[in-house]
Order: sequence, then C-alpha cells, then structure tokens
Amino acid sequence: MLVMGIDPGLSRCGYGVVRQKGRVTEAVAAGIIRTDKDDPVPQRLYELQVELADLIDAHRPEAVAIERVLFQVNVRTAMGVGQASGVAMAAAAGAGAEVFEYSPTQIKKAVAGWGGADKEQIGQMVQTLLSLPQPLKPVDAADAVAVALCHLAHRPAASRIQAAM
Amino acid sequence: MLVMGIDPGLSRCGYGVVRQKGRVTEAVAAGIIRTDKDDPVPQRLYELQVELADLIDAHRPEAVAIERVLFQVNVRTAMGVGQASGVAMAAAAGAGAEVFEYSPTQIKKAVAGWGGADKEQIGQMVQTLLSLPQPLKPVDAADAVAVALCHLAHRPAASRIQAAM
Repeated sequence: MLVMGIDPGLSRCGYGVVRQKGRVTEAVAAGIIRTDKDDPVPQRLYELQVELADLIDAHRPEAVAIERVLFQVNVRTAMGVGQASGVAMAAAAGAGAEVFEYSPTQIKKAVAGWGGADKEQIGQMVQTLLSLPQPLKPVDAADAVAVALCHLAHRPAASRIQAAM
Repeated sequence: MLVMGIDPGLSRCGYGVVRQKGRVTEAVAAGIIRTDKDDPVPQRLYELQVELADLIDAHRPEAVAIERVLFQVNVRTAMGVGQASGVAMAAAAGAGAEVFEYSPTQIKKAVAGWGGADKEQIGQMVQTLLSLPQPLKPVDAADAVAVALCHLAHRPAASRIQAAM
C-alpha cells in the first residue's frame, strides 16, 4: 500500500509518500513544493498543479490523503490554502488516485495519540514510526507524512469493518 | 478583446465569454458547468478543471476574470467555492490567459452602477449591455457574463492611466 500525504499550502505545500508492507512502514519520498510569493496567485496554483501531478505520476500512490482546511485560524491564509487544496484534490483525482481528507485533529490523534499534539511532537512521532535516523525537515514535509500515516491508521479499521460484515 | 468571466462554484460554475470590438460588446457564449453533489469532491473538482480547460481552449480568451470568493456568507459553501476558484485560476493560467479577480461589489458597480444591486438587476443590465433579446438563463451564466463585463469596464481605465503617464 503506497500512500501520498499532502499538507496543502500556496507558499509551501508539503508532500510525503509512505509505503506499508505487512508490519513495516517506510518513507519513500518527502519534501515541499514552494511557489514564489511575488508571482500572481493563478500562476502559483498552476505550478502547484503541475508539480503535484508530476509527483503523483512518478510515485503512483493508491491513495492520496489531504489535510482538511479549517477556517478558524486566518481567513486570508485559509483562502490560499483552500485554493491549493482544491488544486491538489483535482490533480489526485485526475491521476486516478482515491482521495481522502482528514482533519488536523484526526491526524494528530493518529500519529501522536492525542489531538492537541504540537508540530514538534508530530515530527518526533513521524521519525519514530518510520525509524528515521533524524527528524524530517522541513516541518511541512513531516506534516504531510503524518497525513499519509493517518490514512494508514484509519484504513485497516475500515477493512476490518468490511470484513466483519 | 475576448474575455471569459467565471462565477466559481462546485455545484454550479457559471462562465460567460464576451467580445468587445470598438464600441460594440457582444456575448459569444455563456452557460454553467454542473457537477453531481453525490460524487466525491475531488472528482467534481477534476471534472470542473477539465471542462474549464476545454472551454478556455475552445474560445482562447485573452483574459479570464474570476469573481473573488468572500467568506462572510457561509463557511461551508465558501470552502467549495474557494476550491473551485483555485481550480479555475490554475486552469486559466495553464492555458496562458491573464487572470483577474474582482469582488462582488466591483462587479455590481461596474455593471449596474452600484454595489448593492441584486441578481435581477444584474441580469437586466447584462441583457441591456449586450443587447440580448431576453435575459440570460440561468442566473449563474448572467453573473459570469457580468464578471467579464466588469473586466472590460476596468480595462480601458487602466489603459488610459498608462497612456497619460
């Protein structure tokens, strides 16, 4: 099972590809896509679309998990994040991947055990769960890996429910 | 000058293509793109992306004008509209068109003379300005044409300012 996690953003969009085989979960790729704040927003969204499509095409994940955008924080930033998440969803669906959304609380709970975990704890747990020699940098990349791990944590439960029916 | 206006939305996305030649402004095409509420959002965003890219490819507008999304109204709906506007911007930029954003107030002022105009007044003014035999239906299509007309109204002013400098 190959899963790509995406932490959507216009200036910095994190991505992380994780493979699970039996009990072993390993990191395949992780990084961030940056777009230039001085460029027009439509151009930046298009660049994001192309880069994400290329990444999905290169790794061919069966599932793409995207962090859900919440509006409580900052309406101005949320707009860019919402637009970026729309572009990411369209790119993933266009590549034929199944797309899933998880809230920040779901992601934190799945990776660190509780919904109030901070970025540093998430980074540490990502390092531990994937047996990495050092924390993943930058944090947006670790966050994206956490989204992928959240999907893997939710998936077996869904399968078990199906199997029990 | 050929301009495409877009009234972004996930369930219903309006588009309108308008040509201005000298003093004559005429409607070239207008309609709405619908996506099925029962389909997953990523699939719907991808369909929107493909349909908009096809339309832009068919008409080759020099400029694409998009109504800016405001968050005051309804946070749940705004998310879908924001994602749709992101997809629309990326599609337009990807097709090489210049992309412009106008607020609802700017659009109403440009078309009906004041920012408080309602949908019916906008529909009537779109009909008058384009010398249409009857009002454009559905309203989302008329709204999209209004966005295109707003861009045409703002453009000469910008040219005049440049010429005066």
